[in-house]
Amino acid sequence: MKNTLDKALAECRKFTSEGTVASYIPELQKARYDALGICIMTENEILAVGDCDEKFTMQSVVKPMILLLALMDNGLEKVRDLVGVEATGKPFDTFNYSDRALTGAHINPMVNAGAIALLTLINGDSYAEKFDRLLSLTRTLADNPSLEVDEAVYLSESQTGSKNRALAYMLKAYGMISCEVEEVVDIYFRACSIKVDCRDLARIALVLSRKGRDPKTDKQLFPAEFAGCVNAILSICGMYDGSGEFALNVGIPAKSGVGGGIMAVVPSRMGIGTYSPALDKKGNSRAGVKALELLSRELNLSIF
Amino acid sequence: MKNTLDKALAECRKFTSEGTVASYIPELQKARYDALGICIMTENEILAVGDCDEKFTMQSVVKPMILLLALMDNGLEKVRDLVGVEATGKPFDTFNYSDRALTGAHINPMVNAGAIALLTLINGDSYAEKFDRLLSLTRTLADNPSLEVDEAVYLSESQTGSKNRALAYMLKAYGMISCEVEEVVDIYFRACSIKVDCRDLARIALVLSRKGRDPKTDKQLFPAEFAGCVNAILSICGMYDGSGEFALNVGIPAKSGVGGGIMAVVPSRMGIGTYSPALDKKGNSRAGVKALELLSRELNLSIF
Amino acid sequence: MKNTLDKALAECRKFTSEGTVASYIPELQKARYDALGICIMTENEILAVGDCDEKFTMQSVVKPMILLLALMDNGLEKVRDLVGVEATGKPFDTFNYSDRALTGAHINPMVNAGAIALLTLINGDSYAEKFDRLLSLTRTLADNPSLEVDEAVYLSESQTGSKNRALAYMLKAYGMISCEVEEVVDIYFRACSIKVDCRDLARIALVLSRKGRDPKTDKQLFPAEFAGCVNAILSICGMYDGSGEFALNVGIPAKSGVGGGIMAVVPSRMGIGTYSPALDKKGNSRAGVKALELLSRELNLSIF
Amino acid sequence: MKNTLDKALAECRKFTSEGTVASYIPELQKARYDALGICIMTENEILAVGDCDEKFTMQSVVKPMILLLALMDNGLEKVRDLVGVEATGKPFDTFNYSDRALTGAHINPMVNAGAIALLTLINGDSYAEKFDRLLSLTRTLADNPSLEVDEAVYLSESQTGSKNRALAYMLKAYGMISCEVEEVVDIYFRACSIKVDCRDLARIALVLSRKGRDPKTDKQLFPAEFAGCVNAILSICGMYDGSGEFALNVGIPAKSGVGGGIMAVVPSRMGIGTYSPALDKKGNSRAGVKALELLSRELNLSIF
Repeated sequence: MKNTLDKALAECRKFTSEGTVASYIPELQKARYDALGICIMTENEILAVGDCDEKFTMQSVVKPMILLLALMDNGLEKVRDLVGVEATGKPFDTFNYSDRALTGAHINPMVNAGAIALLTLINGDSYAEKFDRLLSLTRTLADNPSLEVDEAVYLSESQTGSKNRALAYMLKAYGMISCEVEEVVDIYFRACSIKVDCRDLARIALVLSRKGRDPKTDKQLFPAEFAGCVNAILSICGMYDGSGEFALNVGIPAKSGVGGGIMAVVPSRMGIGTYSPALDKKGNSRAGVKALELLSRELNLSIF
Repeated sequence: MKNTLDKALAECRKFTSEGTVASYIPELQKARYDALGICIMTENEILAVGDCDEKFTMQSVVKPMILLLALMDNGLEKVRDLVGVEATGKPFDTFNYSDRALTGAHINPMVNAGAIALLTLINGDSYAEKFDRLLSLTRTLADNPSLEVDEAVYLSESQTGSKNRALAYMLKAYGMISCEVEEVVDIYFRACSIKVDCRDLARIALVLSRKGRDPKTDKQLFPAEFAGCVNAILSICGMYDGSGEFALNVGIPAKSGVGGGIMAVVPSRMGIGTYSPALDKKGNSRAGVKALELLSRELNLSIF
Repeated sequence: MKNTLDKALAECRKFTSEGTVASYIPELQKARYDALGICIMTENEILAVGDCDEKFTMQSVVKPMILLLALMDNGLEKVRDLVGVEATGKPFDTFNYSDRALTGAHINPMVNAGAIALLTLINGDSYAEKFDRLLSLTRTLADNPSLEVDEAVYLSESQTGSKNRALAYMLKAYGMISCEVEEVVDIYFRACSIKVDCRDLARIALVLSRKGRDPKTDKQLFPAEFAGCVNAILSICGMYDGSGEFALNVGIPAKSGVGGGIMAVVPSRMGIGTYSPALDKKGNSRAGVKALELLSRELNLSIF
Repeated sequence: MKNTLDKALAECRKFTSEGTVASYIPELQKARYDALGICIMTENEILAVGDCDEKFTMQSVVKPMILLLALMDNGLEKVRDLVGVEATGKPFDTFNYSDRALTGAHINPMVNAGAIALLTLINGDSYAEKFDRLLSLTRTLADNPSLEVDEAVYLSESQTGSKNRALAYMLKAYGMISCEVEEVVDIYFRACSIKVDCRDLARIALVLSRKGRDPKTDKQLFPAEFAGCVNAILSICGMYDGSGEFALNVGIPAKSGVGGGIMAVVPSRMGIGTYSPALDKKGNSRAGVKALELLSRELNLSIF
């Protein structure tokens, strides 16, 4: 497996030149565009190659965390009352859902509007408390109590987050959320700005692959059924409107973020985290996807 | 003409029962649903029947004022750089412009997004000043220096204006405006809340029908060509996505607002103002439209 | 007026280089791209400059004829039951009407789907007879009994008409038409291929400007109200999704076709026909539009 | 496993009353609405309960067969040049792909337009031959040489197939297919009308679950990688715009048809075929889906 990882690193770094580092959040543009890190974590071993020490912000990779906590706090039914689970056929930040009044059926937990809506379902007396609980869950799953928000990215997101504010006001206009928009988008920006590395993502994915059981203690960190929910939704729409292509070429539940990270879950077997900030046109890490294609092919990871 | 007006009043009040008073802004719901007022103003006479003393807020009827002031301050070319002039085929407050990135071509001055965008073009060191200039122009055209904002409606709009905030943030997200969203939507809500009656609307329409010349002094209040611009755009999209139907049945440039008012321009001949707060499904005053149909038929007002 | 016409010809021919001759129907590509002809017809005179002897096919300019005959055969109400009158905000041949099931409200008589639907309303025991009646009406209005179908263009249209067949089957799928698709599209292709020149279009427009009264005999060729209907609908959507721009810059009801013709109606005053086959991006004759802008400006033709 | 099957039959037949038998093809309406059959096939056993002898037409369940044969005849790359693999977010027979010109990226092999496009890729000197090869493949995978077209359903589809003809002409209009529309839709209607029962579907699914190896002979019936392709695409969009919900609640690749059948693939483990003609709003067999939910829960079938 180590050889395959080395091969993936050697063969896939060149694909960074085919992508573009996200620029709509100015702070993200500072990333080293040809970085590539890959970490595989199983119950027994941790293999990490390349730039696995490089830190990056979760961005959309935090969406499965938001979904998971919303499920833990409310159960599936209440979550499903608020948001749908179908692919939208459209980019993750689109306004163009339909000719009809917006309903939950038009969105899902992996598009921005869906994630923002789900944040309002998280328990907590204040939005600060909701965020603390989300950060705490992320730390637990990553087994890394030192995870923090990257303040520079958070500020950059907050200052340039007109699209997310528009989406949140749209949710409010259609009665899907009722809170103060600035409060909910503030913790959305914070959540997107949680700083991780490949190991953290691999660890979170490993817990999801084990249906919520802690790899060390075997303690159930959350109900097993919710891992199934998250993995199913990731397979449908975790890789933006490139999820079908990813199912075809890789074949495992995964979530990417415009920060360059991908968290990939191989059910019952392993968790994988990759990092490479140059993105393809759909917003997925170009070299990360190529590395996962190679790993899937050589290690027979596809669930199909 | 007075007989025709009386007939229109007598025959059209019954149509108020076919409409619904706007409820999305709570304060608007307080309107007396079966009110109907009609005022015709020509160079020589003012005829007013029915509830012409009833006050109501301009709502979308202020959009031609915004367009006119943006034209006066910037000229046609700069206005056209920011917004299009085609009917969108969609409701006035829709988000669903296209599968593509939003551009000016997707909106026009008579949909909310277009009017909000145009407000940013109005001269003034502050948004307060921009609004004062808009109110001042409206007072001049209405020949009524006492026009004021209805504070209760303004507050109601501001508190429930999520959709307009969403539209404004969407404009900002696509780089079409760069100001603070709260500042521009605040004066948009104020502009919509200017309180008028049928006479005010008829007077404004009369000035537009005379290509900007003051009915009393014959002074040119704004360049004649801008009256042509406003009238042309009203005929294309002044009556929301019912503008084609209105062209067919009435055949004159007009603008309606969800407050119940309609301002109708009969080029070279007269201005008409109607008020009746019960709206049809497209947001146009039901009895107001029926009254204009009757007037157009009996007085041969259609320009086609 | 003759001087103005000469000026329009001299100043506007250069705009042919900004357009492109339609190529989706191969036969149309044979047109001489820099041709420009302009004809003005009033009750008293006929002025023609430039390439007014050049023949071209009506293409979409036949749509007002189809609408008019459908109105004459059925009345407005039945026509309105089948098709709407609002601008769609989309190109004339688009499939993308809505997320909902197609209804008449999604189309209008000036988009292909609407014109095809209206052909089924024309009286006649066979589609051959329906077409003969349409050709006959067109000849009468053009005062030109020699009008015929251009067989080469008709064959070219028929062979490449997949989009129109798709639209017709879509109408059938949604129960809006029930005839054989091949029959109705066949006469649609024939109708589009009727060969005319600028004088023919000016004459048809003149009749419409006189509300149906024959310029020579003053005989009412069709009910006056239907002229109003046609003119109103032309002003809303006669120039494709460039109708707003045309209202702003020219300000008269008009219909263009991809063959290069424009028929423009100046109510109560005159009819204008222009021909220049190089089209702008929306499918309107580039030099024809520019010529009409100049004529409108210099002769004060705008109805607004 | 037999007990679970019996339980599924007993508990799920009641859900037939929540669905509606397809009526847009008149012949389909004749189905007995409360029928329910379930068949599980593994390498070692065949379990069948309920109405497993009832015959029904494949309808959209034939789409994976079309995709598979297109892959076998052309390879993945050529298939991907013609059609996309992303969920469209829209019903399977929609016209409303986008505001842009139609491209392969707007469709996928599981919507009608995509399946029709792929039929043109199948080898064969004539459309009759293409169809014979498709029927032959289906017989081989079902291990049932007696499979035939239901002529009554085929005729009914052909007579009422305006929407599919519209889609095919749309594909032709955008240059995605170049054949005669009537020829390709004719074999599409035939393919949809192939008559099967639950055992046939379970057998086809079993071969897909074994990556193409024949359950009896272990002979590779088609390249293993193509099984992975088909299964991946089924998981993304096999259950129409209810694929996300199905992934969440069942979690296995599956394809449903409006004839009432569902073919479900449990990778490496089994194939399942269900039949119950009453459909939910998205066009999936209501009782079939409920039975698969129960089986997945009790037999731990989910791949997530």
